[in-house]
Amino acid sequence: MVERGLFIGRFQPFHYGHLYALKWILEREEEVVVAVGSAQYSHSFRNPFTLGERIEMIAAALREHSIWGRVLVSGVPDTDGVHSLWVRLVTSYCPRFTRVYTNDALTRLLFEEEGYEVHPIPFFERERLEGTRIRIAMAEGREWRDCVPSSVARVIEEVRGVERVAQLYRMEVARDRKS
Amino acid sequence: MVERGLFIGRFQPFHYGHLYALKWILEREEEVVVAVGSAQYSHSFRNPFTLGERIEMIAAALREHSIWGRVLVSGVPDTDGVHSLWVRLVTSYCPRFTRVYTNDALTRLLFEEEGYEVHPIPFFERERLEGTRIRIAMAEGREWRDCVPSSVARVIEEVRGVERVAQLYRMEVARDRKS
Amino acid sequence: MVERGLFIGRFQPFHYGHLYALKWILEREEEVVVAVGSAQYSHSFRNPFTLGERIEMIAAALREHSIWGRVLVSGVPDTDGVHSLWVRLVTSYCPRFTRVYTNDALTRLLFEEEGYEVHPIPFFERERLEGTRIRIAMAEGREWRDCVPSSVARVIEEVRGVERVAQLYRMEVARDRKS
Amino acid sequence: MVERGLFIGRFQPFHYGHLYALKWILEREEEVVVAVGSAQYSHSFRNPFTLGERIEMIAAALREHSIWGRVLVSGVPDTDGVHSLWVRLVTSYCPRFTRVYTNDALTRLLFEEEGYEVHPIPFFERERLEGTRIRIAMAEGREWRDCVPSSVARVIEEVRGVERVAQLYRMEVARDRKS
Amino acid sequence: MVERGLFIGRFQPFHYGHLYALKWILEREEEVVVAVGSAQYSHSFRNPFTLGERIEMIAAALREHSIWGRVLVSGVPDTDGVHSLWVRLVTSYCPRFTRVYTNDALTRLLFEEEGYEVHPIPFFERERLEGTRIRIAMAEGREWRDCVPSSVARVIEEVRGVERVAQLYRMEVARDRKS
Amino acid sequence: MVERGLFIGRFQPFHYGHLYALKWILEREEEVVVAVGSAQYSHSFRNPFTLGERIEMIAAALREHSIWGRVLVSGVPDTDGVHSLWVRLVTSYCPRFTRVYTNDALTRLLFEEEGYEVHPIPFFERERLEGTRIRIAMAEGREWRDCVPSSVARVIEEVRGVERVAQLYRMEVARDRKS
Repeated sequence: MVERGLFIGRFQPFHYGHLYALKWILEREEEVVVAVGSAQYSHSFRNPFTLGERIEMIAAALREHSIWGRVLVSGVPDTDGVHSLWVRLVTSYCPRFTRVYTNDALTRLLFEEEGYEVHPIPFFERERLEGTRIRIAMAEGREWRDCVPSSVARVIEEVRGVERVAQLYRMEVARDRKS
Repeated sequence: MVERGLFIGRFQPFHYGHLYALKWILEREEEVVVAVGSAQYSHSFRNPFTLGERIEMIAAALREHSIWGRVLVSGVPDTDGVHSLWVRLVTSYCPRFTRVYTNDALTRLLFEEEGYEVHPIPFFERERLEGTRIRIAMAEGREWRDCVPSSVARVIEEVRGVERVAQLYRMEVARDRKS
Repeated sequence: MVERGLFIGRFQPFHYGHLYALKWILEREEEVVVAVGSAQYSHSFRNPFTLGERIEMIAAALREHSIWGRVLVSGVPDTDGVHSLWVRLVTSYCPRFTRVYTNDALTRLLFEEEGYEVHPIPFFERERLEGTRIRIAMAEGREWRDCVPSSVARVIEEVRGVERVAQLYRMEVARDRKS
Repeated sequence: MVERGLFIGRFQPFHYGHLYALKWILEREEEVVVAVGSAQYSHSFRNPFTLGERIEMIAAALREHSIWGRVLVSGVPDTDGVHSLWVRLVTSYCPRFTRVYTNDALTRLLFEEEGYEVHPIPFFERERLEGTRIRIAMAEGREWRDCVPSSVARVIEEVRGVERVAQLYRMEVARDRKS
Repeated sequence: MVERGLFIGRFQPFHYGHLYALKWILEREEEVVVAVGSAQYSHSFRNPFTLGERIEMIAAALREHSIWGRVLVSGVPDTDGVHSLWVRLVTSYCPRFTRVYTNDALTRLLFEEEGYEVHPIPFFERERLEGTRIRIAMAEGREWRDCVPSSVARVIEEVRGVERVAQLYRMEVARDRKS
Repeated sequence: MVERGLFIGRFQPFHYGHLYALKWILEREEEVVVAVGSAQYSHSFRNPFTLGERIEMIAAALREHSIWGRVLVSGVPDTDGVHSLWVRLVTSYCPRFTRVYTNDALTRLLFEEEGYEVHPIPFFERERLEGTRIRIAMAEGREWRDCVPSSVARVIEEVRGVERVAQLYRMEVARDRKS
């Protein structure tokens, strides 16, 4: 069996930080399984894009950067607080893997309790390449295209993602103001 | 936007019938989205393999036959009888597609009611290349390897799939005898 | 508080048997709550119509027969075998009621265990006015319009219900032949 | 087919603002479908009343104001963040409709993405006729009866709604103080 | 840590066969965890008793036979075909255990795939001490009390279990006759 | 039938406050049913321990303090805001009981609406014996062992609970700092 690393994220959207991380893992592993988390969610400021849109972004970026051949992708839903089942959900929804790559503290905790080897991933220009920042930039009409592969920007524009993110951001701001 | 066809199946396991169908659709479409249905089920005779194992089989077959570049894969759970939501679940879990390819009558009905163009797929040696038959052959110790790409057979053996299918078949037969 | 009787059914479709039963209950109760069961299901031969379509049929029939004023309607989902919660689901999804009218043995058992008074309903031409029979008649191209109020027949035709039922029936027959 | 507008709300409780909005929509549409959202929730300060209680309030108000004949009501559960399925849930749980009337930004976004025509509704004394304000007034022992149709006030009193809302409000205030 | 064996069953009802099995396991293990499966189901002929009623029966039998001190009990819901999550659900709903005792083929398969040691349990008068047979005896008015500890019979009678089982059996027979 | 009181809590972890409350109830009731709430949750700072771990703690404490014989334990999941079903879920997941003992305002409200007699429980050194405080003490490396029975402390240490709570607390603090 081929050795694989697991790379988990929500990819809202898939940006250069994810791409660099993926390439960094590919230097260490024969193949990588990309698990697209919170698969069932969309149309919130935190999770604006559907699983289908995110898979489309990832596929576009993999092709643009010619790393298609060694990457497998699968969506994994959240278990909504039922954390004890989540690792097993990941292992049944994803191709087999040996090591886990993540910077998320809960993911690390859950996988380590199940006996997995978990590795951190170096951040790449974290100040700039971070999902929330990119979504806020989209919402506020500032530059965001240089944070994502150009093929990803194309998908976002085709699904009218900027309008959606901007609208969801306005709602979030309105809600915060209220409470 | 690229035009895509949707190819839906359970792929228990992914066999040459699926591969030929996929190639046939690829002659008609720029790209194909493979939707792996009943994603949440496994470990029954009808659905022995997990979503992760099925994605691994499909990826292996796509590589073996060098059609990797134009195919996108995503798992889609069953909605357990809540059929009115299923088409929308497919469209939110899968990259965008224009036409649907299926021989399943309910899938056809549901997509046509939502206004999609649905096409049948020619069968390829249906007598031999059919999921249930292949699983029975696995369970009864008869030849099944020539029904699936050799890379798929390897995945099945690595996950000890033949033993699992055989055991699940014995349970099903025992249950039928009882009732 | 006004006294109400509860009338539970799946109404697939709402036919004259239901209408006569409803009128019979209205002679005994100030008002009637019509609970549309299995609310989440549709597009199967047993449950072809959505909750929305069934509410539309019931509203049309109530108006056609001018009994609109004393009837309240609500959909109630199945609890999929979690029977202990079902009565409480009905009471929280429906306006308050005092007595239950049903011929279904499980409904009777569940409501009686919770202390409700449950009454049977006389059947009206049961041979002819029965959901399954009417759906089979629709599927086989035989007369079914005289079994339902004409306003209900109109709704069924507008949603192309006959074609749907016929298609679902063919699938069911095919499935039975297989197993 | 009759043309219908969809009017979505949580109706916690159904107040004069809702009634005026409904009348305003009835001037523009042949019929109105009232979708009672967050159907499964109750016994929180945000959603104190059950679906059954809300349907009872709406029915009472419609009768009191003699607009019963052109209004259809159905409850629709929340999809808990799975926003991509919500529009389809509404269309399968409600009688058919053509246009959507709402002032909720997310509802607008979701329906517009699915191709629906969405209209805002003028507010009627928004300062006074707003669900949260009315519930706080109930909880603090201030006047609230003049904000709702008198038949609605009767239902609220019969189910001892003021006591329930007051108790839920005290819990919410206690929780806020803690965090 | 104390070593524990896991004993899984549905206990519909808890009978002498279960008691003998439990005693047999207690000879081999310091403590036993009794997992009450299909916890969410009740009021069907296959699963007539609620989880609460089954826990009450087990507690009564343990006390009557003075094996209370070394037994821990917990209910575990079915995962409705999502078999890949079931073992993890058991381990998170039950106190820690080392070995599994079961005669159920699927339970064996699932636990063995996760690396557990699984042992069969000798049957005790299987012809007589089997859940389905005991429920049929209850339904048909034949002797069943000698198949269960007398304290269990008392619980069954207090919850009017015989009447419930008889009624559920009649429904099942009627359904079978129909199809 | 024996008279039983219901004692509901989350027991994160089971501490001396719970033990004293349980003993206080046992002076008033023949037997006590301990309902372990939020059964499905674990691995959050609010609910760090699984149901299985909590049942193990409770069993250990009952034995250490020799009150094992008159106490029955069962886990009950949260209904996630669907409060109208929760009381019925408790009654179907737990052995029969007559009175409810709780200091939780929502539990009181829900049980009283269903007609139950609800009693408050005196607090025992509330300043010190409170779940959140104990978890913070665990997380901050301060003394917590004297707040729980020594057998409970042993279970917590065996499952490496202090490390888990500390890690979950760090995440919570980080999240709060962000928002």
